Amino acid sequence: MILLVKIMSKNKKINAVIIGASGYTGAELVRLLAFHPNVEISALVAESNAGKKMAELYPHFSMLDLPATIALKKVKWKNVDVAFCCLPHGTSQQVITKLPKDIKIIDLSADFRLEDPKHYEKWYGHKHRAPKLQKEAVYALTELKRERIKKARIIANPGCYTTTSLLPLIPLLESGRIRPDSSIIIDAKSGITGAGRSAKTANLFAEVNENVKPYSIGGHRHVAEIEQELSKAANKDIIVTFTPQVVPMNRGIVATIYVDMHKKTDAAGLKEVLAEQYKNEYFVHVADGDYVPTARDVVGSNHAMMNVFADRVKGRAIIVSVTDNLLKGASGQAVQNMNLIFGLDEKTGLEQVALFP
Amino acid sequence: MILLVKIMSKNKKINAVIIGASGYTGAELVRLLAFHPNVEISALVAESNAGKKMAELYPHFSMLDLPATIALKKVKWKNVDVAFCCLPHGTSQQVITKLPKDIKIIDLSADFRLEDPKHYEKWYGHKHRAPKLQKEAVYALTELKRERIKKARIIANPGCYTTTSLLPLIPLLESGRIRPDSSIIIDAKSGITGAGRSAKTANLFAEVNENVKPYSIGGHRHVAEIEQELSKAANKDIIVTFTPQVVPMNRGIVATIYVDMHKKTDAAGLKEVLAEQYKNEYFVHVADGDYVPTARDVVGSNHAMMNVFADRVKGRAIIVSVTDNLLKGASGQAVQNMNLIFGLDEKTGLEQVALFP
Amino acid sequence: MILLVKIMSKNKKINAVIIGASGYTGAELVRLLAFHPNVEISALVAESNAGKKMAELYPHFSMLDLPATIALKKVKWKNVDVAFCCLPHGTSQQVITKLPKDIKIIDLSADFRLEDPKHYEKWYGHKHRAPKLQKEAVYALTELKRERIKKARIIANPGCYTTTSLLPLIPLLESGRIRPDSSIIIDAKSGITGAGRSAKTANLFAEVNENVKPYSIGGHRHVAEIEQELSKAANKDIIVTFTPQVVPMNRGIVATIYVDMHKKTDAAGLKEVLAEQYKNEYFVHVADGDYVPTARDVVGSNHAMMNVFADRVKGRAIIVSVTDNLLKGASGQAVQNMNLIFGLDEKTGLEQVALFP
Amino acid sequence: MILLVKIMSKNKKINAVIIGASGYTGAELVRLLAFHPNVEISALVAESNAGKKMAELYPHFSMLDLPATIALKKVKWKNVDVAFCCLPHGTSQQVITKLPKDIKIIDLSADFRLEDPKHYEKWYGHKHRAPKLQKEAVYALTELKRERIKKARIIANPGCYTTTSLLPLIPLLESGRIRPDSSIIIDAKSGITGAGRSAKTANLFAEVNENVKPYSIGGHRHVAEIEQELSKAANKDIIVTFTPQVVPMNRGIVATIYVDMHKKTDAAGLKEVLAEQYKNEYFVHVADGDYVPTARDVVGSNHAMMNVFADRVKGRAIIVSVTDNLLKGASGQAVQNMNLIFGLDEKTGLEQVALFP
Repeated sequence: MILLVKIMSKNKKINAVIIGASGYTGAELVRLLAFHPNVEISALVAESNAGKKMAELYPHFSMLDLPATIALKKVKWKNVDVAFCCLPHGTSQQVITKLPKDIKIIDLSADFRLEDPKHYEKWYGHKHRAPKLQKEAVYALTELKRERIKKARIIANPGCYTTTSLLPLIPLLESGRIRPDSSIIIDAKSGITGAGRSAKTANLFAEVNENVKPYSIGGHRHVAEIEQELSKAANKDIIVTFTPQVVPMNRGIVATIYVDMHKKTDAAGLKEVLAEQYKNEYFVHVADGDYVPTARDVVGSNHAMMNVFADRVKGRAIIVSVTDNLLKGASGQAVQNMNLIFGLDEKTGLEQVALFP
Repeated sequence: MILLVKIMSKNKKINAVIIGASGYTGAELVRLLAFHPNVEISALVAESNAGKKMAELYPHFSMLDLPATIALKKVKWKNVDVAFCCLPHGTSQQVITKLPKDIKIIDLSADFRLEDPKHYEKWYGHKHRAPKLQKEAVYALTELKRERIKKARIIANPGCYTTTSLLPLIPLLESGRIRPDSSIIIDAKSGITGAGRSAKTANLFAEVNENVKPYSIGGHRHVAEIEQELSKAANKDIIVTFTPQVVPMNRGIVATIYVDMHKKTDAAGLKEVLAEQYKNEYFVHVADGDYVPTARDVVGSNHAMMNVFADRVKGRAIIVSVTDNLLKGASGQAVQNMNLIFGLDEKTGLEQVALFP
Repeated sequence: MILLVKIMSKNKKINAVIIGASGYTGAELVRLLAFHPNVEISALVAESNAGKKMAELYPHFSMLDLPATIALKKVKWKNVDVAFCCLPHGTSQQVITKLPKDIKIIDLSADFRLEDPKHYEKWYGHKHRAPKLQKEAVYALTELKRERIKKARIIANPGCYTTTSLLPLIPLLESGRIRPDSSIIIDAKSGITGAGRSAKTANLFAEVNENVKPYSIGGHRHVAEIEQELSKAANKDIIVTFTPQVVPMNRGIVATIYVDMHKKTDAAGLKEVLAEQYKNEYFVHVADGDYVPTARDVVGSNHAMMNVFADRVKGRAIIVSVTDNLLKGASGQAVQNMNLIFGLDEKTGLEQVALFP
Repeated sequence: MILLVKIMSKNKKINAVIIGASGYTGAELVRLLAFHPNVEISALVAESNAGKKMAELYPHFSMLDLPATIALKKVKWKNVDVAFCCLPHGTSQQVITKLPKDIKIIDLSADFRLEDPKHYEKWYGHKHRAPKLQKEAVYALTELKRERIKKARIIANPGCYTTTSLLPLIPLLESGRIRPDSSIIIDAKSGITGAGRSAKTANLFAEVNENVKPYSIGGHRHVAEIEQELSKAANKDIIVTFTPQVVPMNRGIVATIYVDMHKKTDAAGLKEVLAEQYKNEYFVHVADGDYVPTARDVVGSNHAMMNVFADRVKGRAIIVSVTDNLLKGASGQAVQNMNLIFGLDEKTGLEQVALFP
């Protein structure tokens, strides 16, 4: 609050540091913040690449006047307002512990998404290294958690699969129109950028191209976040079926979600709930009529789109929900959260529609 | 039978006519039959392109010595043993009526797949034009219908989505290990060749590329075939949920199938059923361990691969089943059926593994 | 001039009409102008689709509040400041003839690019239908023709291959460092959006994917523009070799250009000329060191990038020049030209870097 | 010779060892030889992966009954007839030195392609480690070197870019119809499999997709082979301009070649030479009329296709030449050479046309 007033009164820019700038989500933040009218990029941290220009790592940035990457310990924190943390899970929690307490942290890793450290340990295979910080964190799905986000110091920015799944499912569970049992099945297809920039054989062009690869069947880590938030929405423990799949495209997530409905409603009834929930939202859209959302409707933008369809099986509905995994599913939502925290119009710096064709 | 003996004794080749040679499934048959050691392509029928060389329509055929395409009425039927029919649904049934009765018909359209003409009418929007012929037809999923296929005159070659779905589901339903109710959900991803060669905006590179497009949600026509065969396997009427989706690749189908199991079994139990069913099959494979089949494991070949996975939701299993939609899902299975009918080794002319990378 | 003053003094927005809004370049203009701070889209003309919402043609526009498409005759021209014309060649010239004379025309077709109507007739196969208007037109490669563009009424927006080729070649020919003879060879690779949205078999995903297709070898129409402008730069008639090729991507042009140099210079000397020419340009970049520009360095942005390389063949240099065919190669440059004409900062509404990854 | 007679008389199979079976060219050999009627795969050598099943490295091989990979020292050489060497350059020459002298070696690396060890040293940066073996080697472009190949012990299998370039250029230079000077420019586009299976950031899907990347401009190593063979054909030293480029596809090379002709001939004259040269060849094709060969015309097959086009620049012709880089450009030609050496029909085991669509 104080922070916010200070900024606005002096008309000064938000000073932002990006930690982990050399990965894809880091680079996407650079792309967004470089043109954000209220942000100044104070420092770009890229430990193993420290000293390199961003343009060496990403030649499309050679058009921009950016600071060179530096090691974390060289960051001058005075005047910094916000740090975006784009590190691998497990590392984020260690780094954030050492950051000044008076800056906002927007963490794009999974480190502060699970409220119960035991859940973290179960899903990520090691004890959480900063369990105390967890209390300062909020699971930051912007449209559904605004008031809590505004007050939190640590923003646990949701995962890409999670965002795409929760946007339709939370309001539907809260409305009581779908069954809060194990009948929810999320079959998700993602572009390869979700796997990051690390050089692995499985992510080579010649392996991903012309292919569809289901993976982590029955056990992808995003399921922990999904169930945590759905259980809160339903007010009871929920277990879901979740199958992620890599398809040969750079960006985009298409989640096909199967739900069983309560007897008194139907697909139109579900759609009504979603339409009402998102009627005033800039970034979340319920498609008209029977239009089936596709990845390209949103890729390149921070928008999400969804629609609900009746199935031939009585009582079942099918929801299609789409996002750009690097934007609404990661860096775009991070900037949206920053805008919210600092009292800016949420869409500042994010006013784009999909890059199509 | 007589036909078969005749061929074998004279060591003469099977004379084959391909009707509808200019589409993708027709071209795929040409590619396969041109190198089949026991087949002679007698005629290539391509009504609207009649008179053209195949190499004009498909320049990769310029290496082959093929007959020019002709109109159907110009085909000399004497000595023809088999006709492959690659026409659009609705047309096939009219054409087949006029063909000589002493040749085998392998129909790649949907026209003779639905045993009940009323079902055909319901799903295809017009009265069946050759309901009497339906009685001579068999739904020809090779591995599961061999004895009936050998005796039939009209081979209703299964659809691509259907083949990929039925290969695992029929044995599982027959085994009684999965629930024969509406809990079966098939989420299928397909390459674009399934849509054929017709010039539509939706199938342009710039629209399909970098995209995932669910379509015909809750109402794709292949569901009629799927339910017909599953109902027979379960000995009761079954309704399934089926969602087809186009992904940016040329060939391949990946079906992710969700099933609920009976209490006394588990994913391993299902896998056992499939392993037993297909242990002696050349083309159908149950993957080892927890390997997840991908499209590339089979694309370019007539092989199918599948595996079963335990879900976190108790009692649910997830099956991944893959085929090449133009081979095991269409022309490859058509040749396999031809081999079966004419007493040849089923794999003749189909001995290829996937073209990878 | 008067127009310009009027606009600026009243702080009113530029009223823009897009004729041919349903094609890819039209849609790209909509995407850009919808967020342009100084533009109001007055009307969207799409003759055959008249009456449809843009969101029906392009669902990614459902997030925008756009006027429905209308027929040309329904446009109210009063207060319109500029018309963008995205029609096929041959049609543009007929339509523009009928437009009010006091508005600026930015024509994205080829109709007014060739100064000599005889050249037009030779390359496009019919007599030019508005030869008088040609005198009011200027070939509008922004960075190299600013003064003329500001004064012209009709802006002949350059082709995509042409822009990519001329940006490096004009300054090099003007500098006298490369030989103004037939030694210039342009080998260009383009994404498929250059072919537009028309439904042709050759542009289907299954035909373009996994392929490279050279076409119009020795005779592509863009060569007429290229030679016209290069001949002016060299002050003598120049014939070039130009080979366009479609590669499996949506957007982007990579031109590999082979030139023979005068004895007194070398690749570094050529690079010096280009660096000097473009040192103050926002959108045109000469890459550092020996970095080889790629399509992805610019796709999604209005930027162009180029570099010069020494060849092993003495006296020959190789230039790589890249653009996004729909942006700097079409709609982006059109907006840049509009900005220039109306006295705005040229980069207004175009401040993006490439969308990578 | 003796070897050949022995094999044929006993009707025994050719025993083949593949060294470096885990790379893409090794895997492609496995795919081809597994179905070759006259070959038995005796051993698969994959040093760092020794002990693994091929199906672990390449799941599409799980359908085949293949020996597990072993370390080189474990190979039993008795009865082995031929070793295919798919190792990186520099390594091949060391390994081959140690192999028994009475087996045929088909080396897919660059190690024995350059006749002059000084050239090797210049291009590959280190002294050749087996210069004596070089004398036993022949540069093995099958169609143009048959007699020498039959007699050689070491087969230096040509590179992919080289094969695609030399097939049209050698006959044209030998015919004296094109100028044997530095006017030859080869602009080549390749699928990414040419880069092998090593996990590098530059080869990730998200970096290659939607991109075109020229590389090694003016200095790719294949230029050494190209110039060696062209110089022999022209009977004088030739320097060429060669630009390789990666395009977003798995397989295929499209070389666009610019040549200057002698005054007395034209494009039709060049085509005549090629048509005459290849009229009896099974794998090399001169396209009819003005058809422009594309990658898809040959990808998946051992075929090569080419055509010649007149340019608008007088005296210049443009040749388009296409191959599958893993087949005619590597493993396919290796098998073709093996067939030739062992007296088999050259097309044995290679009778496929392109996999299209």
